[in-house]
Amino acid sequence: MPNSRAPTRSVFYISDGTGITAETLGQSLLTQFEGLPTRATRMPFVDSVDKAHACVLRINAAHQADQVRPIVFNTLVNVDISQVIHGADALVLDLFQTFIKPLEKELGLKSTHTMGRSHSATKNQQEYTNRIEAINFSLAHDDGQTDKNLAEADVILIGVSRSGKTPTSLYLALTFGLRCANYPLIPEDFERNALPATLAPFRAKLFGLTIEPKRLAEIRNERRPNSKYASIENCRHEVHAAEALMRREGIRWLSSTTKSIEEIATTVMQEIKLERRVF
Amino acid sequence: MPNSRAPTRSVFYISDGTGITAETLGQSLLTQFEGLPTRATRMPFVDSVDKAHACVLRINAAHQADQVRPIVFNTLVNVDISQVIHGADALVLDLFQTFIKPLEKELGLKSTHTMGRSHSATKNQQEYTNRIEAINFSLAHDDGQTDKNLAEADVILIGVSRSGKTPTSLYLALTFGLRCANYPLIPEDFERNALPATLAPFRAKLFGLTIEPKRLAEIRNERRPNSKYASIENCRHEVHAAEALMRREGIRWLSSTTKSIEEIATTVMQEIKLERRVF
Repeated sequence: MPNSRAPTRSVFYISDGTGITAETLGQSLLTQFEGLPTRATRMPFVDSVDKAHACVLRINAAHQADQVRPIVFNTLVNVDISQVIHGADALVLDLFQTFIKPLEKELGLKSTHTMGRSHSATKNQQEYTNRIEAINFSLAHDDGQTDKNLAEADVILIGVSRSGKTPTSLYLALTFGLRCANYPLIPEDFERNALPATLAPFRAKLFGLTIEPKRLAEIRNERRPNSKYASIENCRHEVHAAEALMRREGIRWLSSTTKSIEEIATTVMQEIKLERRVF
Repeated sequence: MPNSRAPTRSVFYISDGTGITAETLGQSLLTQFEGLPTRATRMPFVDSVDKAHACVLRINAAHQADQVRPIVFNTLVNVDISQVIHGADALVLDLFQTFIKPLEKELGLKSTHTMGRSHSATKNQQEYTNRIEAINFSLAHDDGQTDKNLAEADVILIGVSRSGKTPTSLYLALTFGLRCANYPLIPEDFERNALPATLAPFRAKLFGLTIEPKRLAEIRNERRPNSKYASIENCRHEVHAAEALMRREGIRWLSSTTKSIEEIATTVMQEIKLERRVF
């Protein structure tokens, strides 16, 4: 709910790279001011003094329009470019320079001041290839499409249809370079009362996702309205059967109901003891 | 290359949430010290004083083992929990508390000190549904699988096979909630010397990816060694034909050769003027 006393603030995320780091921390900080109305702009690839001057013009124009100072989060590595931004009529929070000094002191090293390093492919070609391979693996092994090369999986997610397996698999692959297969638990598994036979050798890699039947019915109804598949009775039956199966087989699981993809992925990595393959 | 003078440093990323924010900025800072050997550990969901004490034990043990102080990046929101971490034998950099005070002063508001808000699904259910729908859309429209509902796409990537379309599509969907279709440019398109007819109505949404033929041949050879598909001659032919086609049709494009997925996605958003749909 908007905080009625607070005017809308323009927020700028400025970086010499993608600006994703500035945006991630800046958003995290702003979520602490509930109901603050903001208008956010990411300004990536600001890698010259000229581009910085262009940013300052936009920031100052926002100040004029809003009648309150904009807030600027920046991760600029180059001190000259950063200086230009500090000349804007805004609260400028320097997410990078603030910490580089204490780090230099602690490490007894000088920073290289190389721009745009954090999300750059040139850092490590092999690591980048690993990431692409993880994405290909996870796509090929989405929704139990194939049993091939399951031994190469870092983790195999199981759960009923629409419990969050696919987004979690893709996130683990894209962000961490992990090879993530996923298998739906289907009525045949519940009747047989056992895991799919192909998964048995990989018990240590299995992780289950479950979900509250009410939320599952909502999600399924968006795709297939008024179907038996989406009915609350069927969702309740499938979820209970899946949880009973996982409990009996001793498989770790979590409920995805109120969790974000990032939270699910982080918990999976913690439980299966997986380390990221890309940085 | 490891810096031979520098001892290996243990690095800890600590958060009451996933720790992704701490890790993103911490890694970005550490890339500025080229060749510094580090051993990184992410400690997520540290949401109690007891868990913080357990972290301190691990940090202090690392100090003993390394004989140099560990570096701790934390985004802890709760001041009591953060205090415990500051008692560790380490350089503790407080990515969150450092900026919350100047923000409170500027905004004239008190922060809510709510933990784990930045990657939490409970923030906004509708936004979360948008994200899942974007993932489903991008998966269904991967590699030109269907022409259905192309009008609903935010962007349509085109390019030769293995130019980076699929990872970029999935990243745009997962991270920004954007509906991203992708279409391969194939020999038939080059012979006809025109875009696929189904794409013609959506020219404003088209964005091209190209890649250096040498790098493309490397990537293709990993999948189909010694094939005509992967040969340098064929790669050179396809890339030149694709670039000629895009130039003639007036389609914006970039070379993915030395770019990360994040850099490609950010450039696409900038060029097509797309705003993120999830936060």
